[in-house]
Amino acid sequence: MRKINNAEIVAVGTEILLGDLVDTNSAWISQRLAALGVNVYRHTAVGDNRERIVAALGEAAARSDLVVTTGGLGPTSDDLTHECLSLLTGRPLVEYPEARRHVDEMFRRFGRAPTPSNYKQALFPEGARLIPNRLGTAMGALLEHEGTLFATFPGVPGEMRTMFEETLAPLVRERTEGTIVSRTLWFAGIGESALAERVQDLLDAPDPTVAPLAGEGRVRLRITTRAATPGEAEEKIAPVEREILARLGRYYFGEDDETLESAVGRLLREREETLAVAESCTGGLLAKRLTDVPGSSEYFREGIVAYSNEAKERLLGVPREMLTGHGAVSEPVALRMAEGVRELSGADYGLSVTGIAGPGGGTEEKPVGLVWVGIADRGGSRAHRLDLSAWARSRSAIRERSANMAFDLLRRALQKVKEA
Amino acid sequence: MRKINNAEIVAVGTEILLGDLVDTNSAWISQRLAALGVNVYRHTAVGDNRERIVAALGEAAARSDLVVTTGGLGPTSDDLTHECLSLLTGRPLVEYPEARRHVDEMFRRFGRAPTPSNYKQALFPEGARLIPNRLGTAMGALLEHEGTLFATFPGVPGEMRTMFEETLAPLVRERTEGTIVSRTLWFAGIGESALAERVQDLLDAPDPTVAPLAGEGRVRLRITTRAATPGEAEEKIAPVEREILARLGRYYFGEDDETLESAVGRLLREREETLAVAESCTGGLLAKRLTDVPGSSEYFREGIVAYSNEAKERLLGVPREMLTGHGAVSEPVALRMAEGVRELSGADYGLSVTGIAGPGGGTEEKPVGLVWVGIADRGGSRAHRLDLSAWARSRSAIRERSANMAFDLLRRALQKVKEA
Repeated sequence: MRKINNAEIVAVGTEILLGDLVDTNSAWISQRLAALGVNVYRHTAVGDNRERIVAALGEAAARSDLVVTTGGLGPTSDDLTHECLSLLTGRPLVEYPEARRHVDEMFRRFGRAPTPSNYKQALFPEGARLIPNRLGTAMGALLEHEGTLFATFPGVPGEMRTMFEETLAPLVRERTEGTIVSRTLWFAGIGESALAERVQDLLDAPDPTVAPLAGEGRVRLRITTRAATPGEAEEKIAPVEREILARLGRYYFGEDDETLESAVGRLLREREETLAVAESCTGGLLAKRLTDVPGSSEYFREGIVAYSNEAKERLLGVPREMLTGHGAVSEPVALRMAEGVRELSGADYGLSVTGIAGPGGGTEEKPVGLVWVGIADRGGSRAHRLDLSAWARSRSAIRERSANMAFDLLRRALQKVKEA
Repeated sequence: MRKINNAEIVAVGTEILLGDLVDTNSAWISQRLAALGVNVYRHTAVGDNRERIVAALGEAAARSDLVVTTGGLGPTSDDLTHECLSLLTGRPLVEYPEARRHVDEMFRRFGRAPTPSNYKQALFPEGARLIPNRLGTAMGALLEHEGTLFATFPGVPGEMRTMFEETLAPLVRERTEGTIVSRTLWFAGIGESALAERVQDLLDAPDPTVAPLAGEGRVRLRITTRAATPGEAEEKIAPVEREILARLGRYYFGEDDETLESAVGRLLREREETLAVAESCTGGLLAKRLTDVPGSSEYFREGIVAYSNEAKERLLGVPREMLTGHGAVSEPVALRMAEGVRELSGADYGLSVTGIAGPGGGTEEKPVGLVWVGIADRGGSRAHRLDLSAWARSRSAIRERSANMAFDLLRRALQKVKEA
């Protein structure tokens, strides 16, 4: 069997070319292939058109050891992937009894009866090995042709991912040499260019490679290397990681899948402390993101979305004269919201956000993008003013950045106490 | 000037092939080109590699009237798009004084000084027309070569979109014949296959085309046609839309950019009524999605994220014996939460969600995916039991579907009252 060094991904579906669907499958498959030591050199998306699918598959095969496809495995007349693979390889479509039984079995489980068109999903190019699908009717195919391995998957992400892990990943692992290992380090409170300047020598180094990527008030550095074994890769990555943390440690909040909300959660759990939030312009986003993290009930008590002034007054005890005198978006109101939710909940920390997310509601004095963050703890409370007016045209950007910066301010407060 | 009938999009960047970045630009550009009457036949993504970028650009040009690229316009050594366009077309890279002034001007605005490498962004293939960028240093290029128009954009979505609208869109409009018009109709409370069966004849019709797409408890039907003018397209779409609504109207909640939360907001605004929410397992997601909608302060009063039992008791008045006797995930608690937040806030409607989002917390009797939704209004309250155990492996899927179904139940309640 030929080794698998490089791969391409072909996504099939007119909905992708119409922009109705963002192709997230190719990114996921790319990450998994990189972890398995395979270089991905190209992504292609084509519509549900025989001629164009055959061309894309043929071109990808001419360049690659492995071609992974997603989509086009459904029962309808515009599902063409297996037919096109048959046309390209000259292997006729034949019915696989195992696949026909699978269609029957899945329909039985859904409590419905298959129509004749459903048995289209039992047709595969002769010589293909089937990829089982425990979650849906569409089985995939593995087919070797002129030195290229084709692997076909349905477009439904959950089905594709399970099938990839269960069938393709073990097979690729046997046919690769070495592994590609990456580590992502996450930073907040520093801009991309300021961060890049401090590690420019590492960004220029050939191996491990270090690449920055920024978004919504966070920056990440991705360290990547290739080695014979994961242990060897780790030995190459560790000193680079140490060097980066020595220079940028105070901005660092976690690695790989860490988020600001999970970093905050980890610190609270370590300290056995609890948190409650009071939100105005973020409107539930802080609470939503905190509770995205499994197990957050251990440290997250409650959230108050006080969207109206009346609710700020009644639920959080913000005095009416403070709201009328300073306005809802002001330092004293942010402070009082954080204190109010801390008192109300009995949590160790109260975190508040009040601001103008737009598109309406801005004034000369208080423009769209002005946001106040309040933090209250047993030692008192303080507020931070954020100027997000550069994102004034995007309500969601202001809200997401406000949440990131509020979490980062709380993280710093938690770490400071910890270090003391 | 040659007419522009079809286009391809080439995304440049190793981060895409590593799966570090999902390419959302291609979907956005595709939607815009479709609206301008241009067929997009292929998306390609390639890494920061000279040979492979030149090959991808050349192949795309051989097939297309228009090639749109994103990414690779930065100042670093791995930003190669304009260099590769120069290699492909044989037009040397030359410095454009206008672009050099733009780099200086943007740095001045950021309060920083450019380094020599920044002036790389002033180099373009000879003969290119520049695409201004008001938001960043990277200008794009328009270049005609052997019957194909190349248009290059930076990878930053905000910059790319503004530049596309300001420069490429008007140019494409002059060089297309006719327009492609689509309308998306949104449905909830019905599965994709059940919906498809009721409009199978329309799905099979050649023009306008009707295509279904499902996700997270909603289904959409996209009606698409091509015509000489928007008015003519509308005349073709309108009868199909009427026919679909005659068959499926009770599941319909809006068109195009409508979401369940904006549909709920529209109904509340029409009725001049208000809403408050009480959330447990969705942890702020209902409030976050309601306040995603600009102007939601008109009808959204407040949200209580009562994540702990203690908070349910204290904030929403759920009796302790109810929580211990029935459990937090139960019909009486859902009812009481909805009633409690309605009373607390003085809103016309109270909406509550309590459930088990997982991964932990499930039992034989109350598995992960069991969710109760409560709705309270002046006429009383009722609760609905949701079984989302099929998504037990995804906390976010359970939370998003719970929110969708809660909003859809409220929408139906609002519409029923309206029709009475």
